Amino acid sequence: MSLLIVGTVAFDELITPFGESGKIIGGSATYASLSAAGIYNDISIVSIIGEDFPESKLELMRNKGIDTSGIHRVDGGKTFFWKGEYHNDMNSRDTLATELNVLADFDPVLPEKAKEAEYLMLGNLTPAVQMKVLKQMTKRPKLVIMDTMNFWMDIAMPELKEVLKEVDLLTINDEEARQLSGEYSLVKAAEKIFTMGPKYLIIKKGEHGALLFHGKNLFFAPALPLEEVFDPTGAGDTFAGGFIGHICKSDDHSFETMKQAIIYGSALASFCVERFGTEKLVDLDRSELHKRIMRFIDLTEFDMKLS
Amino acid sequence: MSLLIVGTVAFDELITPFGESGKIIGGSATYASLSAAGIYNDISIVSIIGEDFPESKLELMRNKGIDTSGIHRVDGGKTFFWKGEYHNDMNSRDTLATELNVLADFDPVLPEKAKEAEYLMLGNLTPAVQMKVLKQMTKRPKLVIMDTMNFWMDIAMPELKEVLKEVDLLTINDEEARQLSGEYSLVKAAEKIFTMGPKYLIIKKGEHGALLFHGKNLFFAPALPLEEVFDPTGAGDTFAGGFIGHICKSDDHSFETMKQAIIYGSALASFCVERFGTEKLVDLDRSELHKRIMRFIDLTEFDMKLS
Repeated sequence: MSLLIVGTVAFDELITPFGESGKIIGGSATYASLSAAGIYNDISIVSIIGEDFPESKLELMRNKGIDTSGIHRVDGGKTFFWKGEYHNDMNSRDTLATELNVLADFDPVLPEKAKEAEYLMLGNLTPAVQMKVLKQMTKRPKLVIMDTMNFWMDIAMPELKEVLKEVDLLTINDEEARQLSGEYSLVKAAEKIFTMGPKYLIIKKGEHGALLFHGKNLFFAPALPLEEVFDPTGAGDTFAGGFIGHICKSDDHSFETMKQAIIYGSALASFCVERFGTEKLVDLDRSELHKRIMRFIDLTEFDMKLS
Repeated sequence: MSLLIVGTVAFDELITPFGESGKIIGGSATYASLSAAGIYNDISIVSIIGEDFPESKLELMRNKGIDTSGIHRVDGGKTFFWKGEYHNDMNSRDTLATELNVLADFDPVLPEKAKEAEYLMLGNLTPAVQMKVLKQMTKRPKLVIMDTMNFWMDIAMPELKEVLKEVDLLTINDEEARQLSGEYSLVKAAEKIFTMGPKYLIIKKGEHGALLFHGKNLFFAPALPLEEVFDPTGAGDTFAGGFIGHICKSDDHSFETMKQAIIYGSALASFCVERFGTEKLVDLDRSELHKRIMRFIDLTEFDMKLS
């Protein structure tokens, strides 16, 4: 078994009501792989970085068992950079800077081993780049999961729809599900999105939890109510990484396993937001993760006595 | 055992993207009592109506086993009336008319039997009126649950805080919890609200579900994702009515029973929004309710295998 994650490896700079992060590492593939690595250990990344990205941070990923040989370093290039400021409620943010840098010319080339990955996670990237990855796979992965965002729906809907045809599971937020489907009801939105290709849909609702749709099956998991959300950056990618990590570890993508995977993803995301950037993910151990999963069980479990 | 519900019995007129309701019955005590009556059968209402409120509608409540003798009819008076219009997303609405009418002079007088009710539900009313009810109780109810809203926090916070001291369980929405506590985190908001009197707090998040807090105990139930929300009016009162109905039926308010009660409330609310006003609640039978509760179990249940 093996998991290929394609996405960004980047620099972020975050301003929150609790302080400023300075320049730290971020990116969808960074968060997703560090999250998945808490559960599963045959992970490789395909991404692009500039000369300025510290080797020590790649080493940190490798120490977690992540194969970074598919991360292409562009000599003389600069790494993708995002700077944002969160407001008091931590639910809204302003982008202060987006510098695509080397990401603007990202033309992914998959190492031979990556082409045979059994599980593929396509992080939020230009649909054309996501398609290039799919076309290089020498065998159909057991499960292809993909993230995207409203931006691509606005400027590249035809290309996005082409990619969707090849995808098993799509992760988007509620507003994006409404935009993609043209339906306000999330139940109807899911039905419409199923006609576009995906057989599974995860609607991420941030602090309001996540919904998993598959045919007529439906599962909901809440986000863990927290005393303090310190930095929500990367929570969605961390969720997706934990989700696919559990699927890979189980080597099964039945609906029952996907339910567990949603809980893993939610638990990992709840750690992610407790510190700046990837800090908490890097430090996390298995027993902390298991304790937090128990809190999800406590939060949602009930014995029904029909009255 | 017995349940006293104090709240409004009113006329509503609703405009939604699906059509117009015309003048129909509404009010917090109407929704809450019809909802509770689906589960429990020793319910009485204290409220106020005008000459214009049809006896046939009170008869309809009585047919559900609800004691309406505490509903005071003002000769020559007009019933409280609210008219609102929902927008396409059904999550925002404009108030087009609010006519307090007889409600402006509501001075509740409890029938003797009502003064000894074992469970008391105070619907959203002026805090001064809620206090008048509490003062007439000849013995302390086993559980006092209360609803309120931002409006009273804006104009009558001192009176509201006096009432809160006498209340066991408060139901408010997330924005109101933040306003009342001055805390953005709902976990911190709950801690602060517990210092004001209530020992239990339910935070209603509409389509995002409901949270129950008690000390360090926490339970979350989602709202059922629906194909179509036809009319959300009264969903909160229906939820609260189903909740207290199950508590009364069980004659127990342990945290475990409250969890079940949250699911009952959520199931009843999911019916409420499927038709205009109280239409669906009036028609509902026990087997439909039980089927829907099974859907909540399906929606939230998972077997965890720690990986």
